[in-house]
Amino acid sequence: MAQPITKIAYHTAEAIYVRGASLVDELIGQLTFTEMMYFQLMGARPTPAQTRILDAVLVTLMEHGITPSSIVSRLIYDSCPEGVQAAIAAGLLGVGSTFIGTMEGCAANLEEMLGAPEGEAARAKAIAQRVRAAKQPIPGFGHPHHKPDDPRSPRLLAVAGEAGVPGRHIRALRLLAKEVDAAWGRHLTINATGAVAALLGEIGIPAAVMRGIAVVSRAAGLVGHIREEQVEPSARFIWSTVSEKIPYAGG
Amino acid sequence: MAQPITKIAYHTAEAIYVRGASLVDELIGQLTFTEMMYFQLMGARPTPAQTRILDAVLVTLMEHGITPSSIVSRLIYDSCPEGVQAAIAAGLLGVGSTFIGTMEGCAANLEEMLGAPEGEAARAKAIAQRVRAAKQPIPGFGHPHHKPDDPRSPRLLAVAGEAGVPGRHIRALRLLAKEVDAAWGRHLTINATGAVAALLGEIGIPAAVMRGIAVVSRAAGLVGHIREEQVEPSARFIWSTVSEKIPYAGG
Amino acid sequence: MAQPITKIAYHTAEAIYVRGASLVDELIGQLTFTEMMYFQLMGARPTPAQTRILDAVLVTLMEHGITPSSIVSRLIYDSCPEGVQAAIAAGLLGVGSTFIGTMEGCAANLEEMLGAPEGEAARAKAIAQRVRAAKQPIPGFGHPHHKPDDPRSPRLLAVAGEAGVPGRHIRALRLLAKEVDAAWGRHLTINATGAVAALLGEIGIPAAVMRGIAVVSRAAGLVGHIREEQVEPSARFIWSTVSEKIPYAGG
Amino acid sequence: MAQPITKIAYHTAEAIYVRGASLVDELIGQLTFTEMMYFQLMGARPTPAQTRILDAVLVTLMEHGITPSSIVSRLIYDSCPEGVQAAIAAGLLGVGSTFIGTMEGCAANLEEMLGAPEGEAARAKAIAQRVRAAKQPIPGFGHPHHKPDDPRSPRLLAVAGEAGVPGRHIRALRLLAKEVDAAWGRHLTINATGAVAALLGEIGIPAAVMRGIAVVSRAAGLVGHIREEQVEPSARFIWSTVSEKIPYAGG
Repeated sequence: MAQPITKIAYHTAEAIYVRGASLVDELIGQLTFTEMMYFQLMGARPTPAQTRILDAVLVTLMEHGITPSSIVSRLIYDSCPEGVQAAIAAGLLGVGSTFIGTMEGCAANLEEMLGAPEGEAARAKAIAQRVRAAKQPIPGFGHPHHKPDDPRSPRLLAVAGEAGVPGRHIRALRLLAKEVDAAWGRHLTINATGAVAALLGEIGIPAAVMRGIAVVSRAAGLVGHIREEQVEPSARFIWSTVSEKIPYAGG
Repeated sequence: MAQPITKIAYHTAEAIYVRGASLVDELIGQLTFTEMMYFQLMGARPTPAQTRILDAVLVTLMEHGITPSSIVSRLIYDSCPEGVQAAIAAGLLGVGSTFIGTMEGCAANLEEMLGAPEGEAARAKAIAQRVRAAKQPIPGFGHPHHKPDDPRSPRLLAVAGEAGVPGRHIRALRLLAKEVDAAWGRHLTINATGAVAALLGEIGIPAAVMRGIAVVSRAAGLVGHIREEQVEPSARFIWSTVSEKIPYAGG
Repeated sequence: MAQPITKIAYHTAEAIYVRGASLVDELIGQLTFTEMMYFQLMGARPTPAQTRILDAVLVTLMEHGITPSSIVSRLIYDSCPEGVQAAIAAGLLGVGSTFIGTMEGCAANLEEMLGAPEGEAARAKAIAQRVRAAKQPIPGFGHPHHKPDDPRSPRLLAVAGEAGVPGRHIRALRLLAKEVDAAWGRHLTINATGAVAALLGEIGIPAAVMRGIAVVSRAAGLVGHIREEQVEPSARFIWSTVSEKIPYAGG
Repeated sequence: MAQPITKIAYHTAEAIYVRGASLVDELIGQLTFTEMMYFQLMGARPTPAQTRILDAVLVTLMEHGITPSSIVSRLIYDSCPEGVQAAIAAGLLGVGSTFIGTMEGCAANLEEMLGAPEGEAARAKAIAQRVRAAKQPIPGFGHPHHKPDDPRSPRLLAVAGEAGVPGRHIRALRLLAKEVDAAWGRHLTINATGAVAALLGEIGIPAAVMRGIAVVSRAAGLVGHIREEQVEPSARFIWSTVSEKIPYAGG
C-alpha cells in the first residue's frame, strides 16, 4: 500500500510548522483565527477579500437560538458535565443533510452550471426544471420561517460584492434563482445555505468540505449554549416538558 | 420546575437577533469570527485587546500535525465519507482530560492564587508543594516533546503583553512557574495549555468552558485533515500499519 | 516504545478467531449475544449464572422511555437521517457521570468494603458517614421518581440470588444500604445503578468498564427510538415545543 | 403541529412498562438481551427462531480485531479516560456507508426482488446487470481479505436454515448471487453484510434500522477493546507509529 504523506504540519523539539510557516514566529499573534483556518485548509494565505467572505459565512452560521443542535448539547452537558467536548460533539452530529448539508447540493448545482458548454443560463433552466419535475426540494432555496426572503442571503451576497470577489458563483446563484422561481411558478427565497454555497465557492473552498465550515461555526455557537446551561440550567426542564408532551399510547 | 430563559438569540420571520444585535444589520460583514464568538459567548463585544488574545489562542491550538484526533477523523471519514460532521465530532471527542483538559486545572490553580488572602506568591508556593508532595503532574507545566521549553508559551504571553491586558492571570502564572521549578528541583516548562489558561483568564473566559475554545480551534484543524484525506487518502494505510504492528498474542 | 499486543481477535483469509475460538465453527449459532459479549470482554466463557446475571442487567438498562438520550437520538436522526449510527452515538454520549456513571462510584465503595481489614460492616459505616458529612450524594442510592424504592433493584438482587452467585458484592451492598439509612436518618432506596454495580461485580466485570455495559444496553434501546421516529416523527414537535417554552429574555 | 405519541415505554413511581409489559415482573430475569432487544424494537416477543437468528447476527458482527473503529476507540479512550461512553461513541461513528452500510443496499435489492411482478429471478438478473453496467460495486458481495468466500456467510445462512425461518429473503439472496457471478463473469462471495441483510429481513427488521443492529453488536466489541487498552495500552504506540509513517512533505 502506497505510503501517504502530509502537507499540513510537523514539529521538532523547538518549533511547530504549519504549511511551512513557523507557528510561533509567523502565525501566533499575526493571523486571525479566520486567516489561520483558511491557511491551514487551503495551503495559501487568504487575501483580505477571502478573509472577509469567510468571516461573514462563519458569523452567519454560528447561532440560530434554540435549535436541535443546541437542545442536544444542553441535554448531553447535563448528563455529562465533565465532558464539554462531548456535549459539543453531540450537537455537531446534527449538522447533517437535513439543514446544513443542502449547502453541498447547491454548490454542486453551481459547479454544474459553471462548467456547462451550453452556457450557465441554459443549464440553470435545465436544473430547475429537472428538480421541479422530480418533485424534489431544490437545495439552497426556500425556508420554513424566513418569508418571503431569508434576510441573511442578500446581506451575504452584498458582503461578497463589497469584497470584490470575481463573482462567478454568485452570478450563477442569481441565474439559478431566476429559473427556480420560473419553474416553481412562485418566489422561493435564496436561503442562507444557498448564499453560503456561492460565497464559499467564490473563495475556493471545495464543496466536499463546505459542511466542515458550518461545523466550526456551530461549534462556537454551542460553547455559548453550554455556558448558558451552566448558569441557567434548562436540560431538566426540557426533559420533563418533552416527556409530558409525548404521551404513551401503546398497548 | 422553573422555566428557564435564554439570553442568546431569537428570530422573527424577517430578522435574527443575537445578544440583542441584528445578525444581518450589525454583525454579518462587520465582525470577525473571533469577535462574534466572544460576543455570542460573553454577551459583550470584545475590546481589540481581547480579540487579539482570543485570536492568538485559537491560532495556537488549531494544528499539531498527525495526532490522535487527526488520526481519528481520518479513519472515521474513510468509514463514513457522507458525514464530514461525524468525522470532525469523533476527533473532537479526543479533546479530553489527557491533553487539553489540563487547561482547566491550571486555570483553577490561578483562580485559587488570585483569591488567596495570604497573597498570590504564598499560595503559589503552597500549591506547588502540595501537588509535588502528592506526586501528581501539575497542570499547565511540562511537555513530552518540547524541551526545555514549549515555544508557544513565551509567544502567547508576549502577545498578551503587547495587547496590554491587565495581566493578573499572567503574573500569577509566572509566580506559579517559579514555585513549580523550586518544588520539583528542576525546570518545568510552562506548556501551551498553561499559557492558554492564563490568557483566557485575562479576557474573562470562565474556566468551565475553556475546553470549548480548544474544541472550536481543533474543529478547524480537523477540516484541513479531512480535506487532505479526500485528496491524499491515509486511512487504509493507517489501518493496515496499525494492525500489522499490534500482533495477536492470545491463546 | 514497547510494542503492544492484542489478545482479542485476528483473522486469516479463511477464518476469524476471537479469544482463540473460531467465529464460524464455534461461536456463530452457538452463543447468545450475551455469552459472546462476556467471552469477548473477559476472555473466558460465562457460566450459566454469569450469563443470567448479565442478561438481567442488560435488560434492565435498555429502556426508560422519553429520556435525555432518547430525545437526543430522535433530534439527531431528524437532522441526519442518513446516519443512524450518528444518532445512536449522540444519545450514548449522555451515558455520563450524572445518571449511569454513579454505577462506578458504587462499585468503588463495594470494592473498598471487600478489601477492608477492619471488616465490611465497619467500612460500610465509615463510608456512609464520610459521604454524608461531606453533604454529597452517595452513588447507587436514591431516585427522584421511584419512591420509596426503585422497583428494579430487588428484582435484580433476586435474580442474582436465584442464579446462585457467590454473593460477596451483594452482601456488601446490603450492608452499605443499612449504614446509608442510618447516616441519612431516613430510607434511601438502592437504585438500579447500585444494584447493577453489585451484580456486575459478582460476575467479575471490572468497575472501569461497567459503564460500557450500560452503553451497549442503551444502544439497543436507542435503535427502538429511532425506528419509532421513522414511523412516528417527533423531532420537529420537540424542537418547536422546547423553543416555545424557553423564551428569549436578553437585552 | 400534530402531537406525537410513543408506544415504547413509560413509568410510574412504582413500575416501568416497556411495550406494555412490566419491566420488573415480566422482563428482567426472564428475557435474554436479544429477546428484549427484539421486543423493544418490534413490539412483539420473538419466536425462538427469530431469537436464534438475531443472536447469530449479533455474534457475527461484534469483533474483527484491530479495525478502524477499534483503533478510534483506543485513541479516544487514551485522550479521555474519564469517558468510556465517548470512546465507544467515537468508534461507532465508523459504522457508516463504507463497511456496514452496504447491508442496507443489499436489503433494498432483496426487497425489490421480493416485490417484483415479473418474478424474483428475472429481477435479480436485471439488478445485477444494472449495477454491473454502472461499474459500481454491488452491496453485500465481495470482500478484500476473505477469498474466495467470506466464511461467515454460509454459516449464517445455515443457522437460518436450521432455525426454519420462511426463507424468502435467503432464497432471494441466493438467486441474486447467481446472477451477480454471471454479470461479473467471475465469483463474488456473498459477504457477511449480505448474509446479515437476508437474515435480518427474514425476521422482519426494517432495512432502515439494520445498521442499528450492527451498532449494538460493535458497541459490545468496543467495550472489550477499551478494557484491553486499560490493561495493555496501545494508543501512544499507535500515535507514534502512525506519525512516523506519514512523513511531512509540504513546502
